[in-house]
Amino acid sequence: MSDLPDDLLRTLAAALGDGFRLDADERLTYGYDNSRRHALPDAVALPTTREQVVALVRACRTHRVPVIARGRGTNTTGAAVPTAGGIVVSFERMRRIVDVRPGDRCAVVEPGVLNGDLQRALKAHGLFWPPDPTSADFSTVGGNLACNAGGPRAVKYGASRDNVLALTAVTGSGALIHCGSATTKGATGYDLQRLLVGSEGTLALIVEAMLKLAPLPASRRAIRARYRDVESAAAAVARLMAQPTTPSMLEFMDGDAVRLAREIGGADLPADTGALLMIEADGDAHTLPHAIDALISAARGDGCLEALPAADEAARERLWAARKALSPALRSLAPGKINEDVVVPVSRIPALVAGVRTIARDRALPIVCFGHAGNGNLHVNLMYDPADADQRARAQTAMADVFALTLSLGGTLSGEHGIGLAKRDFMPQAIDAPTLAMMRAVKTAFDPDGILNPGKLLPP
Amino acid sequence: MSDLPDDLLRTLAAALGDGFRLDADERLTYGYDNSRRHALPDAVALPTTREQVVALVRACRTHRVPVIARGRGTNTTGAAVPTAGGIVVSFERMRRIVDVRPGDRCAVVEPGVLNGDLQRALKAHGLFWPPDPTSADFSTVGGNLACNAGGPRAVKYGASRDNVLALTAVTGSGALIHCGSATTKGATGYDLQRLLVGSEGTLALIVEAMLKLAPLPASRRAIRARYRDVESAAAAVARLMAQPTTPSMLEFMDGDAVRLAREIGGADLPADTGALLMIEADGDAHTLPHAIDALISAARGDGCLEALPAADEAARERLWAARKALSPALRSLAPGKINEDVVVPVSRIPALVAGVRTIARDRALPIVCFGHAGNGNLHVNLMYDPADADQRARAQTAMADVFALTLSLGGTLSGEHGIGLAKRDFMPQAIDAPTLAMMRAVKTAFDPDGILNPGKLLPP
Repeated sequence: MSDLPDDLLRTLAAALGDGFRLDADERLTYGYDNSRRHALPDAVALPTTREQVVALVRACRTHRVPVIARGRGTNTTGAAVPTAGGIVVSFERMRRIVDVRPGDRCAVVEPGVLNGDLQRALKAHGLFWPPDPTSADFSTVGGNLACNAGGPRAVKYGASRDNVLALTAVTGSGALIHCGSATTKGATGYDLQRLLVGSEGTLALIVEAMLKLAPLPASRRAIRARYRDVESAAAAVARLMAQPTTPSMLEFMDGDAVRLAREIGGADLPADTGALLMIEADGDAHTLPHAIDALISAARGDGCLEALPAADEAARERLWAARKALSPALRSLAPGKINEDVVVPVSRIPALVAGVRTIARDRALPIVCFGHAGNGNLHVNLMYDPADADQRARAQTAMADVFALTLSLGGTLSGEHGIGLAKRDFMPQAIDAPTLAMMRAVKTAFDPDGILNPGKLLPP
Repeated sequence: MSDLPDDLLRTLAAALGDGFRLDADERLTYGYDNSRRHALPDAVALPTTREQVVALVRACRTHRVPVIARGRGTNTTGAAVPTAGGIVVSFERMRRIVDVRPGDRCAVVEPGVLNGDLQRALKAHGLFWPPDPTSADFSTVGGNLACNAGGPRAVKYGASRDNVLALTAVTGSGALIHCGSATTKGATGYDLQRLLVGSEGTLALIVEAMLKLAPLPASRRAIRARYRDVESAAAAVARLMAQPTTPSMLEFMDGDAVRLAREIGGADLPADTGALLMIEADGDAHTLPHAIDALISAARGDGCLEALPAADEAARERLWAARKALSPALRSLAPGKINEDVVVPVSRIPALVAGVRTIARDRALPIVCFGHAGNGNLHVNLMYDPADADQRARAQTAMADVFALTLSLGGTLSGEHGIGLAKRDFMPQAIDAPTLAMMRAVKTAFDPDGILNPGKLLPP
């Protein structure tokens, strides 16, 4: 049974028809996300139109009932978990690709479109949408926008916020707003659309997005660069980012990650490899060889053991397979994992990795670092046994250590996963009190009664 | 004499010392901008530190006195004109380049640094800051950020908003806030820094900016592509933007602009030229020839009379000289000019230019179009005689026609100049009432008493 007021139940049933669900198993299903947190919503809404979303938010505002937007729940921070109850609004039925306009390099989509489905539709036009999170095949564009998802390609093409032209959204007061325009340049009032990106459903519910697209490059080629140690690999990252040929991917693995990829993942990586860069360039038949030459030349330097292009597409695939084998391989270290996606300025990567090594030693837990080096966005994986209370406590302490270290290096808490519940209580360390107060004032401007995804992103 | 309360005068004199000016000629000097509007401020402040700015805003808030941030007054919209009186805050004494960090591709600057001075300092590091407004040599970075300035390079590198990592700013309540971080990726709370960009001093005063830099390309080469008519040039723009080699500039001139450049500017442009594209690529010795080939191939097509690379640097300079000769040449048509920088989706450029031609005929005034075609950002120049009341009225009507046309094509009022006073009253046509109300709520969150640049950007 639901605790929602009868009046609200009637209104929502009338507005949403069979898209309004109260049964226990549906509510259970929509109560989790990939953070492994869970909370039971009072109801689930599956709108098919923006008008239904407006009606829902207005009715919920009247009754001060929380509204939690949801894509497919692939986020890792608990941002989609209805910890304060209320209505989970899943956009799975709003998944139309409304328009693709190749001449304007843009597409109009509903928020429930899967990133992967969109990419397949765009391919026919020789275009793509740059954000490429690992979850692309089963995460939605709306969810990508809500947490400002990135991925390896962000080093060249930017993350979600850099690739949106306009958003239609419903604010916490039930107003339907249209932010931005179908143009790649704009200086017409306040930029509300980029503000909504990364706001994790706390300011408004996105009901339509106009995305900025990029032309698909004709081909890609990968370089495998092995280094004696993390310091020399990090110095190479800085060299790579200081020259004009921006790589289309620039991924990093520390020594432990390399060892795991070799020993568990079966990757062909010599034992003297202290750190690895996987570098990729895109272009056409004419320009790609020169781009590869430029990147190899920047990758080589003190401490570089080897920097060679993948011979062919199969070799390129094998190289990325080593990267993909990492996540499952981590489980060989311990059954539990805290995966944080901290970001530091590129020049501070060596200090971050060295500091993390010290934390691992001090807290007696394995920590493995890999990720998007071109943006300084490393995935720091703290491994522990959740069944062991002492290890659980040490993992939490180590995570706090990693955040403090990141901030001391001029970095920030998250590059592409967002804050949600997982990092919410660390926000006051990352953002000073006047700025947090300003963020709260912005939240109140969009959502005067605080019904949109309460308890997320901003600390209580 | 000033009308400011004695208490405020004492506080500001104490906080700013000789950086607080009340003399009539200083007030006169700081009362205009490049919109040719003028209004007398009650005082002028020349702060040297952020603490002075905080003290000033707090004191002005107590007395509800307007605060108008000012770079060098090159903006064209009246955004820096103190129409409601109050204190003009000129950042000319805060012009330090605080730090250049080549490894992190970023620079930290005070807001009063001239764009051109910054570019010269960055050149030594092989870097540049992408925004390149025509005013670069005498406009400030703070001013560029305030109106989201762009320029020809924006087609490849983005405008000001796309090239800022973090801002330190003073809100209308006198709070010093720190928005963003020194990283090229971030998902840590609300993106306030991009919201401040383009807000024209109505939300906060920027006191420090961390800018995202790009590596200087080794070389550039230009292509001159002549077309039979505007339609075929616009179709070429769409083709150019749909292939993977993004030009570093893609400038357009309509037939009238070409004729003026030839007849008045002395440009070597044959008389059968109905429209012109000036296309530029950047790269290195290896990649540039291929980029030029790709762009020429996309530029050619139905209606293309000629698409040839500039033979050498001198030829490239001559080509750009034709573009630069345009603004002075316009004066041969009429002594007065309204220069609007509307934006449309690239595919709608032909409809925009055709519609403008109809407006010119209907209103019996010359209108010349040229500008940044790769972003659909055209400068529409309405020529008239300000001494003739009838022409003045027709010019105003024609301007309103151009805005209505632009909006009907899915475009927006401004691409890089901003709104200020000039386009403020057209905002309700461009932005619907709920979205404008949301912008007002954001304004109130940052500036509860409405003291920051009152009367600008948002209609009363």
